[in-house]
Amino acid sequence: MNKKMNLLIFSGDYDKALAALILANAGREMGMDVTLFFSFWGLMLVRDPEKLSFEDKTPFEQMFGLVTPKGIEDLPLSKMNFAGLGKAMLQDMMEDDKTPSLTDFLNGARKKGVKFYGCKLSVEVMGLKEEELLPEVEVITAKQYLEDALESQIQLFI
Amino acid sequence: MNKKMNLLIFSGDYDKALAALILANAGREMGMDVTLFFSFWGLMLVRDPEKLSFEDKTPFEQMFGLVTPKGIEDLPLSKMNFAGLGKAMLQDMMEDDKTPSLTDFLNGARKKGVKFYGCKLSVEVMGLKEEELLPEVEVITAKQYLEDALESQIQLFI
Amino acid sequence: MNKKMNLLIFSGDYDKALAALILANAGREMGMDVTLFFSFWGLMLVRDPEKLSFEDKTPFEQMFGLVTPKGIEDLPLSKMNFAGLGKAMLQDMMEDDKTPSLTDFLNGARKKGVKFYGCKLSVEVMGLKEEELLPEVEVITAKQYLEDALESQIQLFI
Repeated sequence: MNKKMNLLIFSGDYDKALAALILANAGREMGMDVTLFFSFWGLMLVRDPEKLSFEDKTPFEQMFGLVTPKGIEDLPLSKMNFAGLGKAMLQDMMEDDKTPSLTDFLNGARKKGVKFYGCKLSVEVMGLKEEELLPEVEVITAKQYLEDALESQIQLFI
Repeated sequence: MNKKMNLLIFSGDYDKALAALILANAGREMGMDVTLFFSFWGLMLVRDPEKLSFEDKTPFEQMFGLVTPKGIEDLPLSKMNFAGLGKAMLQDMMEDDKTPSLTDFLNGARKKGVKFYGCKLSVEVMGLKEEELLPEVEVITAKQYLEDALESQIQLFI
Repeated sequence: MNKKMNLLIFSGDYDKALAALILANAGREMGMDVTLFFSFWGLMLVRDPEKLSFEDKTPFEQMFGLVTPKGIEDLPLSKMNFAGLGKAMLQDMMEDDKTPSLTDFLNGARKKGVKFYGCKLSVEVMGLKEEELLPEVEVITAKQYLEDALESQIQLFI
């Protein structure tokens, strides 16, 4: 049996998404099974930037869809104003060090067979539709998340 | 032996409280033992809104008691300014989807036998008194938390 | 075999650092093995305030080194504006309760044999040098972190 890691991604921050995806890629490279469960703001990481929909949405949900990040490169930094450091500065420093971008880590995780789950309740509350998310994302309940987490040696809330 | 989940709730944010209480309710419905350990800002979730006390408090503690949330519905959103989305908007969207309110999830956890613990050091530093908290809350030390966490299959820091 | 706890410290907030170090000290006092893995903003906790370096750094990295916290007492509060409560107020309340300061908890963890690891990628991206960190800090990869976390009964992302 492979070792298993389950990450609950609640946050929609660029830097936390980076941390989560680095762990997910590293885990797969070590032969671990890796599950990412996206809930609340975490769903912003797996929106498909090309698939914004307005059908069957309340006015709140339409507005919400418009004002929130359209995909992973659109995420804000958790410490946007932290000592004046901005996302552009972090990206520049990553480029200087030849670190892959957030999109590279996301695509790496998709290619390496990381499991992508979206939280059913969050999807409903935020008025998102499954077809607005990346095709890898399967929408599951909190109980299904807990079943997966119980089988995992490592669980983190990010 | 039941499976067990232990959530350390550090954050005093409305949306993170919602995530934690959804997991706690789902865990109990699956027959798991569930422990919530409220520390620092997390204690704001389990203040009894009717039991504000000023006795035997330093001026700092009195001011702190006044300016901090008086109970779970008083919590701010972790992403208050995130793209202009406010708590009222989240609550409206939850209502549209007939999702129970945060209070419903809290009361659900209380009725379902979720264990409520408060962090002793945090209670002391914040100048709270045990009688200002919900009656279910038992105040324990960090070591007692760790003993409980060691017996759990799932531990998260929220 | 000792029980083991592994804390991934992503956050550079004063109050979250306090929570992490209280757990680390409590764990050691109970005879547990404790690992702290500092990544991203968490690295600010283990900068040596006396060892700021500008050599071999890009202009971004130099600026970053200057504007970010120089050590643990320099950290901001995660809820700086939360209801007007500031770090000075928290520190005053801790003093009133004779709670050790953050530096005391950090030094306690160092003396008690808590393992200190820094995230290699974060160190590189932030342009920090190993000699700018506390002497206890060993720089390791995400995979080495995962190996350590897999051996632990408790893992938290803070």
